Amino acid sequence: MSTPKASKVMPLSGFPEYLPAERIAEQHVLDVIRRTFELHGFASVETRAVEPIERLVGKGGDADKEIYGVHRLAARPGEGERAETELGLHFDLTVPFARYVVENAGKLAFPFRRYQIQKAWRGERPQEGRYREFTQADIDIVDVGELSPHFEAEIPLVVAEVLRLLPIGDFRIQVNNRRIPEGFYLGIGLTDVVGTLRVVDKLDKIGPDKVAALLVEAGATPEQARQCLDLAGIRSEDLSFVDQVRALGIQHPVLEEGLAALAAVISTGLDLAPGTLVADLRIARGLDYYTGAVYETQLVGHESYGSICSGGRYDSLASDGRTTYPGVGISIGVSRLLGLVIGRWGLTASRATPTAVLVALTDESARRDALRTAAALRARGIATEVSPRADRFGKQIRYADRRGIPYVWFPAAAGSSDQVKDIRTGDQVDADAVSWAPPVEDLTPALVIPGPGFPA
Amino acid sequence: MSTPKASKVMPLSGFPEYLPAERIAEQHVLDVIRRTFELHGFASVETRAVEPIERLVGKGGDADKEIYGVHRLAARPGEGERAETELGLHFDLTVPFARYVVENAGKLAFPFRRYQIQKAWRGERPQEGRYREFTQADIDIVDVGELSPHFEAEIPLVVAEVLRLLPIGDFRIQVNNRRIPEGFYLGIGLTDVVGTLRVVDKLDKIGPDKVAALLVEAGATPEQARQCLDLAGIRSEDLSFVDQVRALGIQHPVLEEGLAALAAVISTGLDLAPGTLVADLRIARGLDYYTGAVYETQLVGHESYGSICSGGRYDSLASDGRTTYPGVGISIGVSRLLGLVIGRWGLTASRATPTAVLVALTDESARRDALRTAAALRARGIATEVSPRADRFGKQIRYADRRGIPYVWFPAAAGSSDQVKDIRTGDQVDADAVSWAPPVEDLTPALVIPGPGFPA
Repeated sequence: MSTPKASKVMPLSGFPEYLPAERIAEQHVLDVIRRTFELHGFASVETRAVEPIERLVGKGGDADKEIYGVHRLAARPGEGERAETELGLHFDLTVPFARYVVENAGKLAFPFRRYQIQKAWRGERPQEGRYREFTQADIDIVDVGELSPHFEAEIPLVVAEVLRLLPIGDFRIQVNNRRIPEGFYLGIGLTDVVGTLRVVDKLDKIGPDKVAALLVEAGATPEQARQCLDLAGIRSEDLSFVDQVRALGIQHPVLEEGLAALAAVISTGLDLAPGTLVADLRIARGLDYYTGAVYETQLVGHESYGSICSGGRYDSLASDGRTTYPGVGISIGVSRLLGLVIGRWGLTASRATPTAVLVALTDESARRDALRTAAALRARGIATEVSPRADRFGKQIRYADRRGIPYVWFPAAAGSSDQVKDIRTGDQVDADAVSWAPPVEDLTPALVIPGPGFPA
Repeated sequence: MSTPKASKVMPLSGFPEYLPAERIAEQHVLDVIRRTFELHGFASVETRAVEPIERLVGKGGDADKEIYGVHRLAARPGEGERAETELGLHFDLTVPFARYVVENAGKLAFPFRRYQIQKAWRGERPQEGRYREFTQADIDIVDVGELSPHFEAEIPLVVAEVLRLLPIGDFRIQVNNRRIPEGFYLGIGLTDVVGTLRVVDKLDKIGPDKVAALLVEAGATPEQARQCLDLAGIRSEDLSFVDQVRALGIQHPVLEEGLAALAAVISTGLDLAPGTLVADLRIARGLDYYTGAVYETQLVGHESYGSICSGGRYDSLASDGRTTYPGVGISIGVSRLLGLVIGRWGLTASRATPTAVLVALTDESARRDALRTAAALRARGIATEVSPRADRFGKQIRYADRRGIPYVWFPAAAGSSDQVKDIRTGDQVDADAVSWAPPVEDLTPALVIPGPGFPA
């Protein structure tokens, strides 16, 4: 490989990369996500990184403006090259999944439960928790024509199970149903439902006074604006939000549908995972394709970091013109979450390598025997490497110590047995490579959570 | 999500995507690769998808011309936007890893063993086994200043262990050492070593007569051309290649170094994994940065499909101007391999979902109890979903059958026990969700290998 100039070797803002120990922590998080999704019967789908730009534009709300186009450097018009479809990197996993469903509809069994853990790209200004390249972990359940409402309760409970397995402290999944504000706004005489939702969605950022002013500016009366704020202020961990909404005295059939649907979701949550789902009528989600449940997720005590997991129900994820595919889904912002957990809180792994055992060498001629010892340990699932050099043992132990490898294996001297040393305690015992095993907690790197500063 | 036009929903040539069952087969292969790499003490690194174009150009040999550039669609000069680095998608995992090593050298422990399993992109003309988006699985061992030669034997043996765990039949890892042809060419008076290697590398494609003609055209005598072909014809599964080379009567100190180094690799292979490594002096590898061992891998009986796993030793993977980082590595062409194994041979999974158990519903009001049953099964690692609808049992069983889910769970009728049915055999037994488990082979989807056509 020719020599890269030192000047070119530098991080790119918005394209984070981890050192090996942090990467092991990231892998642990990704493994928990995948395992939980699979236990719940979601099948993996992986889509290509690119879509035709025409299919990306207009699908992403604000993300739209920040699509990365992709072009072959060698492509030159008139060179006999056929005109190729203009391509861009996907900015989420929903747009490619919608295309995948329509493209493969005849070969999928519906309702189709899929998970997808992949990178996505947006050319936004990088900041903490917001990157240009980031990993998302999505689940969606998609059906043909109609989607049963019970899936709106199931989806956030799957994600709650993931989050409980991660060292992130308490969290709340805030749930609303788009029909509640929709019916309410119609009930008070505001017909621009999407416009009103967009303004109310700014509540956290600009506060109630400015939201009211914007609503009035858009044509609402001060009374209507106050009513919108009253609705948005309702929040309950139980079903009392229903009575609180009723107390506002507004009636509309769509509002009633929304209240019943949200009550069903919260009730399932109370029953199966108490304290996890919260009815929060402020949650609107910026994107206007949601039609039922909407979800956001905040870490308790870190609400200002924003939602780490969002989604909702859409009545037409995709359509091929004849058939419509409604769905409900949620997306864990893995990079965003890790920006906090690894980036700010310092979560890492107990060692920078999977290796549990280093086989030491008395001299270079002993390497093949050492490789056989290593193979015997690996055959029983113990990650093992052989010392790179037959240095004196102190130096070989230092090699292990620098990486956090807990055990060093010493080959038998004449007439004696092999021995293994726990280099953390200094304990050294006779051992046989076909039977010895470390305690299960030493088998793979553990998550290391920094001292008192960690909020878990 | 707004409706994609049907006309836009189509596969892109060179960007393959799998259906769920095939994806499970792919995941199985990727899991075997990761697990084996980790058992051998390689730490995962994941690098960003993009590099500055300046760093990509000139690094990839032929790949060079087919880099995908990446640009923000919204970027407009003069809009207050700072000039940004021109970026391209990486076309392999070696160039980004070289940059990662230099960038993080102070924080890595050397020799550094890393694996990297990621997508890469090349705008080449798509064909079977050659894609525009593809997955590679690389291992490299990199040191500072000097790299011990024993790693040249270790690297192909790790990959052999991976390949033995995959349903791909017999394979051979062909090994050469660049010093052998180099020393030999110098010994017969050909000083353009790289140029000669490039011509000899075409042997499989154009045959010996044309190679000889090209060599003569480039200035070799017919006798020198014949000698080059004699060397390239040498191949042995044992150490007899050394005597075959000696029999050609050419002497050069670099040739002797190469023979000793290759003999050490083959000898380790004979000892630890007989029949896996083959000395093959035809192997040159197109890229001129290899300096020691070079590897290619062919599936026995499918040699014309080309190498599925290639690499070698390079004496300067990277340099920051003061320090040089030599390394040795190999890359499994995962997409290429799967193009054969899944694409042509039809490898797939026994079911299109991770789900092992479907909990049936007598009526919709029983859903919460069914969700509790499912949670009890999942708590013991059994992937479970609840029936989407309280249809009659026959229809619920069909839901399971269409996906290949092997078990359907029936909730207790009054006074009786829950029951579980193996829908393949029809066997139905009393069962308790806190203790029942399926046989281990039903816990996760198995690889399904088509009948007599499969070459394994």
